[in-house]
Amino acid sequence: MSEKKKTEEKGITVKKEKNFNEWYTQAFQKADLADYTLVSGCVVFKPYAHTIWDKIREETKKRLNKMDVGEAYFPLFIPEKLLEKEAEHVEGFSPEVAWVEKAGNTKLGERLAVRPTSEAIMYDSYSKWIRSHRDLPLKMCQWNNVVRWEFKNPVPFLRSREFLWVEGHTVFADEKGALDEDKSIMDMWQDICENYLALKGLRGKKSENEKFAGAVFTKSIEYRLPNGKIAQGPDFHYDGQNFAKAYSIKFIDEDEKEKFVFQNTWAISTRMLGVLIAVHGDDQGLILPPKIAPYQVVIIPIIFDKHKKELFKETDKLKQKLEKKGFRVKTDKRENYKPGWKFNQWEMKGVPLRIELGPRELEKKIVTVVRRDNGKKENVNIKNLGKKIKELLDDIQKQLLKRSEEKLKNSIKEVKNIKELENAVNKGKIGYAKWCNNVECEENLKDKTTGIKSLNMPEDKIGKAKGKCAFCDKEAKVYAYFGKTY
Amino acid sequence: MSEKKKTEEKGITVKKEKNFNEWYTQAFQKADLADYTLVSGCVVFKPYAHTIWDKIREETKKRLNKMDVGEAYFPLFIPEKLLEKEAEHVEGFSPEVAWVEKAGNTKLGERLAVRPTSEAIMYDSYSKWIRSHRDLPLKMCQWNNVVRWEFKNPVPFLRSREFLWVEGHTVFADEKGALDEDKSIMDMWQDICENYLALKGLRGKKSENEKFAGAVFTKSIEYRLPNGKIAQGPDFHYDGQNFAKAYSIKFIDEDEKEKFVFQNTWAISTRMLGVLIAVHGDDQGLILPPKIAPYQVVIIPIIFDKHKKELFKETDKLKQKLEKKGFRVKTDKRENYKPGWKFNQWEMKGVPLRIELGPRELEKKIVTVVRRDNGKKENVNIKNLGKKIKELLDDIQKQLLKRSEEKLKNSIKEVKNIKELENAVNKGKIGYAKWCNNVECEENLKDKTTGIKSLNMPEDKIGKAKGKCAFCDKEAKVYAYFGKTY
Repeated sequence: MSEKKKTEEKGITVKKEKNFNEWYTQAFQKADLADYTLVSGCVVFKPYAHTIWDKIREETKKRLNKMDVGEAYFPLFIPEKLLEKEAEHVEGFSPEVAWVEKAGNTKLGERLAVRPTSEAIMYDSYSKWIRSHRDLPLKMCQWNNVVRWEFKNPVPFLRSREFLWVEGHTVFADEKGALDEDKSIMDMWQDICENYLALKGLRGKKSENEKFAGAVFTKSIEYRLPNGKIAQGPDFHYDGQNFAKAYSIKFIDEDEKEKFVFQNTWAISTRMLGVLIAVHGDDQGLILPPKIAPYQVVIIPIIFDKHKKELFKETDKLKQKLEKKGFRVKTDKRENYKPGWKFNQWEMKGVPLRIELGPRELEKKIVTVVRRDNGKKENVNIKNLGKKIKELLDDIQKQLLKRSEEKLKNSIKEVKNIKELENAVNKGKIGYAKWCNNVECEENLKDKTTGIKSLNMPEDKIGKAKGKCAFCDKEAKVYAYFGKTY
Repeated sequence: MSEKKKTEEKGITVKKEKNFNEWYTQAFQKADLADYTLVSGCVVFKPYAHTIWDKIREETKKRLNKMDVGEAYFPLFIPEKLLEKEAEHVEGFSPEVAWVEKAGNTKLGERLAVRPTSEAIMYDSYSKWIRSHRDLPLKMCQWNNVVRWEFKNPVPFLRSREFLWVEGHTVFADEKGALDEDKSIMDMWQDICENYLALKGLRGKKSENEKFAGAVFTKSIEYRLPNGKIAQGPDFHYDGQNFAKAYSIKFIDEDEKEKFVFQNTWAISTRMLGVLIAVHGDDQGLILPPKIAPYQVVIIPIIFDKHKKELFKETDKLKQKLEKKGFRVKTDKRENYKPGWKFNQWEMKGVPLRIELGPRELEKKIVTVVRRDNGKKENVNIKNLGKKIKELLDDIQKQLLKRSEEKLKNSIKEVKNIKELENAVNKGKIGYAKWCNNVECEENLKDKTTGIKSLNMPEDKIGKAKGKCAFCDKEAKVYAYFGKTY
């Protein structure tokens, strides 16, 4: 049995660069992050993945708390007539809504949508709760599961029929209040993604075509995966008064007049776990940034029967010592696996640092410390271990972000026309071009290529492009990034 | 507008003792815990309620972490054929399952159940993951939403068609391992309910009739509400090999033989919020135990124009000072509400301590501190405030549990036959009787009364009853509690 098991658990059998899709599939399974289920398009988030999500959640909660965003929970089900109230919204979501029509053996009076997002159910309550300017701003979020029954090929984490997220829904008395939130939310997402997940993305405004169904505008951070495809990360939607009018969310202002509110919505989802796996991993498996790694250090005693007792004792002592300093530490004292096999396994799981401790080290009062990100080994005196671990983890965190930045930077190619764009995208690049930001131009682009879309537009360049659009005869207004998306 | 609002937000208009159901309905709404939605039987958990749930979650997570229970997330949907594998389980749940048969406009190949509980979907994965004795024990839980489409009258928190919970599913190589977990889980629930929620319940074993669908036995803590009805609190189910056989969860043991595993499941849910409201509240509204109160202290400056600036400054200073000591503090500096109105509002929300600060207090460097649980007022020197607040909160926590214990104790009535039982239950008491613990006897009891059931059986008395069953001719085997349930 144990022999069979060892074979089953061997490393990833393909190169990341040569066959990314197969690499990704093996990487998340072999690292024990997730597994397929009998429900097509829905995976199990195993504890190793869920712990990472919990860390993202913890960091986000801390920040939302400071911004006075309350945490609520609204029903999973949305009556059909509520979903239908905002025309663009229902058009955007209804093709992928899972419907409940029956409970037990009883047909329900009205179909219930399994929430693809919660605007419809939340705003019906908001319209009851908000009466006066004193009730504003109203800021709520919820951490929940949503279902979007995609008919395209599902990919665990990246395009899943059910996923977890936090969705924020904030309401303001005036436009300025709503617009002011844009920067604080987008800064928060960028902070968490860069400084915790070590992921650099493209932050900008989505085109008219690609904005959220029902929004006035959408901002996003877009991430490039090693296969050249783009995954949309966290976002922010300014809804203006669109939903306020559809769901009748009004208040009496200080001037005694009745007015519609202004609203925002924003989210970050478990999709980021997919980006994390894809961007940082290598042929050996995951590489996790220390700040969100479930374990930051794994200690592996190199077991020789003669020294076993001592080695185990020192292993436990080291663990305790490092945990006291706030590090997350795992020990692997299994006796039925060889050290080399263990090294591979913990590399596959992306633990940032490995500590090896053998009889030789024990004698010299040192350990061997190995970095997951670059494989570098060094001997460290046990006396200085805590300090050294901190330095190494900080450096790994920094290097991973730097690597992600460089990869992104090197993948951007400025293009002047559709042909250049298609060539660039086919080579896995992100196209960058002067653009008119017109719906027809984007539709035309999608048709004439194999589905290339705008990703978003860097905000500091909006209104600053001069000359013609790269893809049509109109005047350019913006610069934008283009590519194929998940 | 503000006048109208003030009228709307007046206190609870009925007495708890005279009309509990109406009191409950007003209490949770006026304290801003929850609100009804257009989805019948499903409420919004507003931030004030969700924060309490989050505290329960935090405490539970800490304990589960120490017990090495990993946190996972399994799909919301369960294919019908998986749900059907365990006969008793499907029989127990299928009458209240919400079914998804369509996504967008496409009819699905197989109906999907919205999870009423996750055994079926989890154990299908477990059967893939567990191969060897080295994979055991496997301990996972998930914090999620579940749907049980009850056709009885729904009551927010207490009997809700959707609720939040943690469900734990643990797997062991032998019966002993599984049975050993019973005490640690039940002790954990009792600790959280008594020492955090300040709720005393009846801990015991459920009857054959009332055990979980698919379990060998069920343990529970049962809570009496002021209307005499009983709500089942957290529980523990020992499943033996029932699910193992249905879902084929097998492993190769050390002796190289293939064996079925032994399993437990256990849960605590948002139903406890309902018990919390119902048991502790009084005619003025909620009373929250300090350990789980979102705010432990509210500071209300008694505003006089002349001293406003000073008062606000001192209010903020006090808040800071108390927060530094780890207390959760709210200030209410709204100028358009009178102090008396504010007192009522924060009483309705159950904040354990109110601090009043007026010009007179300011001058003397004291504050007035008022306890929510008994209304007692006292002047406290600002210098000693932190120490005094801690003493008072500790005492409130203790008194609430004591009160809950006394209420429970006084509600138990020993009965000798069906008539005495019915009389007792009709007076809002819990019946306590010698019992045969037979399925037919319990069925008979339910038929002959208006639905009285066994609640559970204190474990230290199991097998210790002598003489005849109180309700039939058989020999008594146990002592049991009886009542009507939510």
